Amino acid sequence: MEFDVPAVSHDLEAALRDKIDHKTKPTGALGRLEALALQVGLIQGTLEPALRKPAIVVYAGDHGVTEDNVSPYPSEVTAQMVLNFLAGGAAINVFARQHGIELRVVDAGVVGDLPNTAGLLDRKIAKGTRNFVREAAMSTAQCDTALAAGAAIADELHADGTNVIGCGEMGIGNTSSAALLMSFLCDLPIEECVGAGAGLDGPGVARKIEVLRLAQARIQATLGTQPDPQRLLVECGGFEIVMIAGTMLRAAALGMVVLVDGFIASAALLAARAINPNVLGYCVFSHCSDEQGHRKMLAALGGQALLALDMRLGEGSGAALAYPIVVSAVAFLNEMASFESAAVSGKKEGG
Amino acid sequence: MEFDVPAVSHDLEAALRDKIDHKTKPTGALGRLEALALQVGLIQGTLEPALRKPAIVVYAGDHGVTEDNVSPYPSEVTAQMVLNFLAGGAAINVFARQHGIELRVVDAGVVGDLPNTAGLLDRKIAKGTRNFVREAAMSTAQCDTALAAGAAIADELHADGTNVIGCGEMGIGNTSSAALLMSFLCDLPIEECVGAGAGLDGPGVARKIEVLRLAQARIQATLGTQPDPQRLLVECGGFEIVMIAGTMLRAAALGMVVLVDGFIASAALLAARAINPNVLGYCVFSHCSDEQGHRKMLAALGGQALLALDMRLGEGSGAALAYPIVVSAVAFLNEMASFESAAVSGKKEGG
Repeated sequence: MEFDVPAVSHDLEAALRDKIDHKTKPTGALGRLEALALQVGLIQGTLEPALRKPAIVVYAGDHGVTEDNVSPYPSEVTAQMVLNFLAGGAAINVFARQHGIELRVVDAGVVGDLPNTAGLLDRKIAKGTRNFVREAAMSTAQCDTALAAGAAIADELHADGTNVIGCGEMGIGNTSSAALLMSFLCDLPIEECVGAGAGLDGPGVARKIEVLRLAQARIQATLGTQPDPQRLLVECGGFEIVMIAGTMLRAAALGMVVLVDGFIASAALLAARAINPNVLGYCVFSHCSDEQGHRKMLAALGGQALLALDMRLGEGSGAALAYPIVVSAVAFLNEMASFESAAVSGKKEGG
Repeated sequence: MEFDVPAVSHDLEAALRDKIDHKTKPTGALGRLEALALQVGLIQGTLEPALRKPAIVVYAGDHGVTEDNVSPYPSEVTAQMVLNFLAGGAAINVFARQHGIELRVVDAGVVGDLPNTAGLLDRKIAKGTRNFVREAAMSTAQCDTALAAGAAIADELHADGTNVIGCGEMGIGNTSSAALLMSFLCDLPIEECVGAGAGLDGPGVARKIEVLRLAQARIQATLGTQPDPQRLLVECGGFEIVMIAGTMLRAAALGMVVLVDGFIASAALLAARAINPNVLGYCVFSHCSDEQGHRKMLAALGGQALLALDMRLGEGSGAALAYPIVVSAVAFLNEMASFESAAVSGKKEGG
């Protein structure tokens, strides 16, 4: 599947910097908020950017590899947590409510049956992926369907007026899929990509590494060490991860600001970037996860996270917590007085 | 002046940790939000804490030492920025509006005349401090009056129902006062405490260090190297800094959550802690400033900042930006479902 993402234009960069530098503050004193204001202004191609109808989409999917005991939680937790999202009791519900962020919940491929309710978007590709230790996680057709489903959700939100979007996920076992993607796409040994996930102990992490080594050997034998990103997603992606990649790519193509959550969402972005590197210009890195590997993943993406709160939850929770900082960046650009308008003196001669 | 601040009680710690650990998330997955929820619960002595009527008080004061050319901006900017606060055009206005934080602006000791308006609290001690290179910045009586004025503002806000408060400041030259306080109270050489402030270049920073060395020698000759905190404030404080110390101490005594802003506010906290160390238990460190020295100041205070956005603006801007994170911490504690209430499975046996 092709995604036509234009590079973010830098035509307005000088004008935006000039506007920022005339605000009533020492030059650069708002630090990373200034870079953020510049980025959003460039993405939207205006000196008066606005964030409208923020949305976070939580994609849920199960993973065949859980049969190899890579998570401390049983697979059924994925479906249970979807019900929790629908009931409003999960962390992402709380944070989305706090910040007026619309939450959409998507069944990308949960094993369990889920209720037919207006609050849940049924995009189930299959009842979980196959175990990528032994075979491809999904078919090429399933991967294409998932990419298209993710893209279609970006289209729908865009049509509803959303111009800032975050992607979250829920899927027992999905740090295994993400670590494998990272190992291939960042060219790092698997042990640097694997962490405790939802809370494995030391021996559990060692077992997870061994399982993922087997999967990696199988995939390398099939695709080589630097595989095509879409073939890699077929081999070891999760349905929720593929949909996130599709959403990110289409959201960027539509000129939306993309809030990147933690380890899983960043793995999806690694794949999305391999499909079209222009996606990066639209991305705001919300937080650095406590999941071992996320720091290196961010470095590989050239991204600097806004928050570092030792969180490792997923669900889009980091994106939700960082959203008000993006709002602050846009707000200072639009609302602060300039030295001229407020009649505040500038620097002294030679100061 | 004495401040009777009770130590935060840890009676509810086990019950709060138990509540946090039963929320539908892997243990510890909300990272520093969990520590924050615990802290606010302990401060308020309840399993259902609530943040009410958040307020930020911006204290403005001028500094005699500016005659020695320690800032790139002229002193009149302090009064100009107060007018900007009153007109709603400064960064702190924007961020306070965004988060529903009440802003109070206090003339602690600005050189310029300011309008008599309901929006400005006139607590002017004098038209700026004296130049602490040559003499004490203020009299003991002025210092006591400033501490009491700061405390009284905490009293007023508490009476109005506020239970979470941040202190900001505006004062050309006040990083010089703060650096000197830091050098004494952290026992660090002055060059490790001095930074670019509002934007000094390299030679400007070198000149500032030389000026502060002279002041330090004078004060050491008077008070010794480990002076009493209130005598130190008399020698090299600013009126706004002393008022912040008074507000922090009284706010803590009243059981309020204290949001600590950047370099200047943290210097005030160093003094407040020297007056009564129990104040620290009430403090949430909002951000790590880009001002050279703040990182070491935070380390000396044992504080870990929530945000690190390379900001160096003051005004309470860091406190305002961090406030929604504190809200998130309280919200997850109150609103998230538990494993039991949401019927979500826990860890597997041996998982």
